[in-house]
Amino acid sequence: MTIVKPKVLAISSPKWSGDEYLAAFEEQFDIVEPGNRKTTIANLKAKVAVDGPYDALLILMGIGPYEPFDEELLKPLTPHLKLIASASAGYNEFDIEWMSRNGITFCNSRNAVNEATADMAILMMLGILRDVQGRASSIAQGTWRGLTNGVLMPTRDPSGLKLGIVGLGSIGKHVARKARAFNMEVVYHQRTQLSPDDEKIHHVSYRPSLHSLLSEADVITLHFPLSAETTGMIAHREFSLMKDGVFLINTCRGPVIDEEALIEALKSGKVARAGLDVHHNEPNINPYFIRNDRIIIQPHMGGLTDVSWQRSYREAMENVKAFFSTGKAISPVNADRVTK
Amino acid sequence: MTIVKPKVLAISSPKWSGDEYLAAFEEQFDIVEPGNRKTTIANLKAKVAVDGPYDALLILMGIGPYEPFDEELLKPLTPHLKLIASASAGYNEFDIEWMSRNGITFCNSRNAVNEATADMAILMMLGILRDVQGRASSIAQGTWRGLTNGVLMPTRDPSGLKLGIVGLGSIGKHVARKARAFNMEVVYHQRTQLSPDDEKIHHVSYRPSLHSLLSEADVITLHFPLSAETTGMIAHREFSLMKDGVFLINTCRGPVIDEEALIEALKSGKVARAGLDVHHNEPNINPYFIRNDRIIIQPHMGGLTDVSWQRSYREAMENVKAFFSTGKAISPVNADRVTK
Repeated sequence: MTIVKPKVLAISSPKWSGDEYLAAFEEQFDIVEPGNRKTTIANLKAKVAVDGPYDALLILMGIGPYEPFDEELLKPLTPHLKLIASASAGYNEFDIEWMSRNGITFCNSRNAVNEATADMAILMMLGILRDVQGRASSIAQGTWRGLTNGVLMPTRDPSGLKLGIVGLGSIGKHVARKARAFNMEVVYHQRTQLSPDDEKIHHVSYRPSLHSLLSEADVITLHFPLSAETTGMIAHREFSLMKDGVFLINTCRGPVIDEEALIEALKSGKVARAGLDVHHNEPNINPYFIRNDRIIIQPHMGGLTDVSWQRSYREAMENVKAFFSTGKAISPVNADRVTK
Repeated sequence: MTIVKPKVLAISSPKWSGDEYLAAFEEQFDIVEPGNRKTTIANLKAKVAVDGPYDALLILMGIGPYEPFDEELLKPLTPHLKLIASASAGYNEFDIEWMSRNGITFCNSRNAVNEATADMAILMMLGILRDVQGRASSIAQGTWRGLTNGVLMPTRDPSGLKLGIVGLGSIGKHVARKARAFNMEVVYHQRTQLSPDDEKIHHVSYRPSLHSLLSEADVITLHFPLSAETTGMIAHREFSLMKDGVFLINTCRGPVIDEEALIEALKSGKVARAGLDVHHNEPNINPYFIRNDRIIIQPHMGGLTDVSWQRSYREAMENVKAFFSTGKAISPVNADRVTK
């Protein structure tokens, strides 16, 4: 009896899952890689005819050249394709409805990038408190340490400051844990309060209103998904409630902050310094934030570390393994909507 | 009966000790502030004649304009002056022998800046692992994320990396504790091994030779004092033993690293990226390190936070209080050498 391995198309190379892990995976699955969106649209039909049909599609990292994942790109994989497993947490660029209608189960990655994103928030927090960018510039400008009116001013220390976390999900909890190593007090706000036991475990205290959290935090960090409801959630009114000289970090999604309100708050000094990993209109972001010593800026790098890539690749590949051995994926997004 | 308060001369303003603390201190001591080295040399004798004699000298932060603290500057304070209490940990710029010969007890601050210095090391570590500077530059240069040959490469994650701490004193222990929040394994080297219990408490394991530590660490951070013995301690031979692509952080003193060897190691890629808070010839540092995307550079800001200033001011002022109430300072440097 010949065992036929399910065929898996991978976009792009699955090498970040690790050599040994990949070798073991390849004992169970055949992996094939295409090129980019244009070459894939041109060649996928022929490829399916020669090498296919494919049972699953793995969508890994560095996939900008293929986006969006829609009918135009993926049609040749139907009707045989049963599963799409993505290594990303978000799926704005995926046409889930089309997948559901075509009998394709879609899985995202749920945990892989959380800790790396929390690390980015902590790194940005330390960096803006310690004014590393302004002080580095003082060296480049020949004004060692950047004296204020000829006087050396200390930077800010996280010790004893109050950190306000908006959204205490998996990322927010990592942030809370790491902030404790810097002797910070942590308050949080989200719709649902944790149980008293969980609050004790995480050393956090709840603020039932966003506005009360904003008004008392020395440092504010945002960790919730972008939705119609959260778009522009931090706007003029919210900035007006914050302490003067507050520190603000955004590693979730750019549009949760009203950009004009943020710039006004930076100009007035309401916000002392900000850490921005995410932006409106990436990658064509507002020039105000670029080469600005009061902004630590990153090109949406929160989850993009070697370790989180490996975790997310493996999460995606474990979905493939589970689906073909048990019939059930681990983290399906559209399980209740798949038809056919 | 009239109580005569001891008179304390302060260089420079003691305001960072905190308003309430300072008010209470002033109930016990009269505080006077001079100008800079030049004005002090010109005017101190007259000042002593009018306001003095002074019992103690407080030397606080932002004292570059006065250095060095030697006979030329301080002579007018003798023979009455009994105590000099400095808010700094290091005392290269203090002529301790002159002080000892003139019956002056000298105290440094031992704990105040330790945690802030550790925070700087952690901040630099996260920053170079995550390549924040290179990625920020990619935005400014219009090459979002800075693709390598058109491919998005992840940055490095601290999780699972081995951190080598050279010098596990008070600063090194803070670094070890904070590194654990980022899931790092910590090895350390210094002359004396901790007790097995202390190693367990700090979750560290000992390497009896510097060279073995250097050869296995993914990230190396230096936390020991500058001395004749440690000058140039990290030189060509030491770099050659390190892993290719190692990350190096220096927040202790510039000259512990052979600068030419470091530049060679950066050019060859032996050192992937470095965090340098301290330098040869501060503030006239080697231009190689300035505006270099592979270096996170700071102008010796390790201990310079509001919290550590407050702590160090209070440490210095507690030395004054203890000395004049009990006859014994808390952290004298030259107690066994003071004559007269």
